[in-house]
Amino acid sequence: MYQIDLNCDCGESFGAYTIGNDEAVMPLITSANIACGFHAGDPTVMRKTVQLALQHGVAIGAHPGLADLQGFGRRAMTVTPAEVYDLVIYQIGALQAIVHAEGGQLHHVKPHGALYNMAAQQPALADAIAQAVYRVNPTLKLYGLANSELTKAAERSHLVAIHEVFADRNYEQDGTLTPRQYDDAVIVDSQYAAQRVVQMVKTGTVVTRQQTLLPLRADTVCIHGDSPHAASLVQQLRDACVQENIRIGKSGSGQP
Amino acid sequence: MYQIDLNCDCGESFGAYTIGNDEAVMPLITSANIACGFHAGDPTVMRKTVQLALQHGVAIGAHPGLADLQGFGRRAMTVTPAEVYDLVIYQIGALQAIVHAEGGQLHHVKPHGALYNMAAQQPALADAIAQAVYRVNPTLKLYGLANSELTKAAERSHLVAIHEVFADRNYEQDGTLTPRQYDDAVIVDSQYAAQRVVQMVKTGTVVTRQQTLLPLRADTVCIHGDSPHAASLVQQLRDACVQENIRIGKSGSGQP
Amino acid sequence: MYQIDLNCDCGESFGAYTIGNDEAVMPLITSANIACGFHAGDPTVMRKTVQLALQHGVAIGAHPGLADLQGFGRRAMTVTPAEVYDLVIYQIGALQAIVHAEGGQLHHVKPHGALYNMAAQQPALADAIAQAVYRVNPTLKLYGLANSELTKAAERSHLVAIHEVFADRNYEQDGTLTPRQYDDAVIVDSQYAAQRVVQMVKTGTVVTRQQTLLPLRADTVCIHGDSPHAASLVQQLRDACVQENIRIGKSGSGQP
Amino acid sequence: MYQIDLNCDCGESFGAYTIGNDEAVMPLITSANIACGFHAGDPTVMRKTVQLALQHGVAIGAHPGLADLQGFGRRAMTVTPAEVYDLVIYQIGALQAIVHAEGGQLHHVKPHGALYNMAAQQPALADAIAQAVYRVNPTLKLYGLANSELTKAAERSHLVAIHEVFADRNYEQDGTLTPRQYDDAVIVDSQYAAQRVVQMVKTGTVVTRQQTLLPLRADTVCIHGDSPHAASLVQQLRDACVQENIRIGKSGSGQP
Repeated sequence: MYQIDLNCDCGESFGAYTIGNDEAVMPLITSANIACGFHAGDPTVMRKTVQLALQHGVAIGAHPGLADLQGFGRRAMTVTPAEVYDLVIYQIGALQAIVHAEGGQLHHVKPHGALYNMAAQQPALADAIAQAVYRVNPTLKLYGLANSELTKAAERSHLVAIHEVFADRNYEQDGTLTPRQYDDAVIVDSQYAAQRVVQMVKTGTVVTRQQTLLPLRADTVCIHGDSPHAASLVQQLRDACVQENIRIGKSGSGQP
Repeated sequence: MYQIDLNCDCGESFGAYTIGNDEAVMPLITSANIACGFHAGDPTVMRKTVQLALQHGVAIGAHPGLADLQGFGRRAMTVTPAEVYDLVIYQIGALQAIVHAEGGQLHHVKPHGALYNMAAQQPALADAIAQAVYRVNPTLKLYGLANSELTKAAERSHLVAIHEVFADRNYEQDGTLTPRQYDDAVIVDSQYAAQRVVQMVKTGTVVTRQQTLLPLRADTVCIHGDSPHAASLVQQLRDACVQENIRIGKSGSGQP
Repeated sequence: MYQIDLNCDCGESFGAYTIGNDEAVMPLITSANIACGFHAGDPTVMRKTVQLALQHGVAIGAHPGLADLQGFGRRAMTVTPAEVYDLVIYQIGALQAIVHAEGGQLHHVKPHGALYNMAAQQPALADAIAQAVYRVNPTLKLYGLANSELTKAAERSHLVAIHEVFADRNYEQDGTLTPRQYDDAVIVDSQYAAQRVVQMVKTGTVVTRQQTLLPLRADTVCIHGDSPHAASLVQQLRDACVQENIRIGKSGSGQP
Repeated sequence: MYQIDLNCDCGESFGAYTIGNDEAVMPLITSANIACGFHAGDPTVMRKTVQLALQHGVAIGAHPGLADLQGFGRRAMTVTPAEVYDLVIYQIGALQAIVHAEGGQLHHVKPHGALYNMAAQQPALADAIAQAVYRVNPTLKLYGLANSELTKAAERSHLVAIHEVFADRNYEQDGTLTPRQYDDAVIVDSQYAAQRVVQMVKTGTVVTRQQTLLPLRADTVCIHGDSPHAASLVQQLRDACVQENIRIGKSGSGQP
């Protein structure tokens, strides 16, 4: 049977500042990537988000980012593999302690923003992240852009690699996401977006912007929780999956 | 047989900035309290300090502080017990993951600076710290000012409380440290300082500034690593202990 | 003729985080206190808020706070007068350069949150702020809690002191604001709140929670921009002023 | 008559952390670039450094950097020209207010670290910096790598461009500094370094690592204050200049 995981970045509020709508999104997803205090989140926000995820039985992941709160971790920085290794262990550890204190278990790690993008393309940074995850706990799943350097690095480190796809983004024929400056980078028709996910899951392919057929493994779909219509997009995705007999469940649970 | 632990705050460098002389001090102490990135320290400094402690067989403690890098965690802030609970779990978790990644075990927790002082006097903050430690790992020892609200809170939370004394500080008859604005707050004669520690360990008392005899349990002595003559003070203390047949070892190891 | 200034804290967003609704509030107020990057705000937010204030002819003030982004500058800290003097000059200077680059002039300074509250009660901190303002530009007005240590310090430093009152807060008979833990700390009836302001302006008094009559100079009223009904409260205040023949204008403009 | 300015980065301490030896270096230089709180420095450090510079009659410059304290502003980040424009105005303004409060005048601006390097190569960032400087005060000099995009941008903005050379760094034939991974990137023979500066000033050329002769305008030489032998290198430079009849004075003062 086919299966897909629905993941969403959560816990991105900070102090008096609020981002996202975790309470509306949490009941609809199967994996929550919780910010760890570097690009977003603070210890209190982290605890509350962990509690919310546990209430809804959602798999909890650490969502480490670059130390750039002002840029929300979206600005690329020249960091060394050693720096990345260290900051990933730090952030996983911080979240893991909160999860354990609340009686839960950490399930996965997904890097955030610029760190995610850099790791998708730079093997040295990807290896640094994979090794950091492995050293904290080798049973943690590592989420990365499907077919990227990060999922390759996960396999090199003997971690379970979870290939992530995007419902609402176009793909280039080389497997990268269409850059946002292109008009058709984002897919606004949520009905069409849901159908693309169904195709990815069932056929392991996606039609690129160049109209080629790209092989693409789809273990999990990224939901953008800060979008105002996040909840409705997720609902449409869920409906399409039910109709197509695709099971919705956290990553790794359906694997042999 | 009498026993004493020698602890020192370590890992207080940050990025390009250096504080302390961890390499000189580490061979002389039995417990290292490692800063966790809020008042001092960063993920890379933390890893290197953990590695150094493991090389020397020194017990590793988390040294959480307030989120005030500019004030080095020494400025009191009005934080709620819930905020303290959350930031302590976060910081212990971050360090613990680094220690595990390096193959070691976390041994204790000692709050830093203003957090240490506030917890010595405010039961609600002390309980927040003790509960945070307990929830991360109930076998962690909690270091606090001897006979303070923090050691009482540790006991309320069923943690092993380690009572800390200061070799080079004078005491008031109420058990608090003599505030630094007093001329005789700091004991500069390191020979005399060493003798005071011997007395605390052997008799469980110290002579206060008011010339009264204060009962004081001495499990561990705080060494100030950022002082230029830290290494020589520690050496004198070690010599005095050897001469007086006091075993030097990490806290908790000699207890029934 | 009677006159009142309506001031509001603005520019409190930070990076990807948004607080307040500056675009809705700016047309309704006469003074904007713009956060300066310590407790809220960043250089880009500051520039945009300055541009917005200039478009609406609103007097621009620096709104310096403690270096505590996570606590939004609301947590008291033990800072020395020298530290306060330095951080206030820094923050005024940063905003002033942005205002000048946009072709405007800085009009006033109002400390934020915990700094405002501490300065209302501690003469040494109040003097540090007043001297900082004076050293940057002695024609800047200094906004502070009416009849507080801060307005007294402004006068000692030969600055124009602008006495601030709160429309939606109750007063104690000693002139302090009723602490928020009391049920009647906040006045929710905005009609009644507007009438209180009219009374303060016309009679120089307010009825305290203890039902005494407190003398109170009212040069400016604080509007809370982050409240969801900020715009409607301001509108009611404006209507009441028009009806009572009270001129609405920036502080200092109507003084002899 | 030939003239050269000796500039040094100063005020790089932060809170309890110390970098550099400003008190030893200040008497030997003619321009101080003072960190502005983003990559290094804090308001109190800035004031003390300004006071020290004024005591020694040293020209004061703002030394703005990226908001990356942990990386000391040395890590490149993908910042937009608008972000750079805003953060440069902010930082100049903060320092300028401190300088004015101390009775001095701001003389120049020199970007720090990664911001300096990016501006040397990227015209859009260079223009953002130049325009920021111009909008704060068009009489401020702008220091940049000799013959780089930054000095060109300064001229486009009608600012006085001060061309900076490095005594202890090798040059490539394309005018860039030899990257530090090369063995001969740094010139350790301070006698030879001083002779190179004399040649640059008198002939407007330097011999590159490829043994070609590179035309190079030398208005100011960068001294590295955090090097342990900074003071001795400066002294040797000063001696060589005296012997060769090169006047040492702040940039711009000797220009027609």
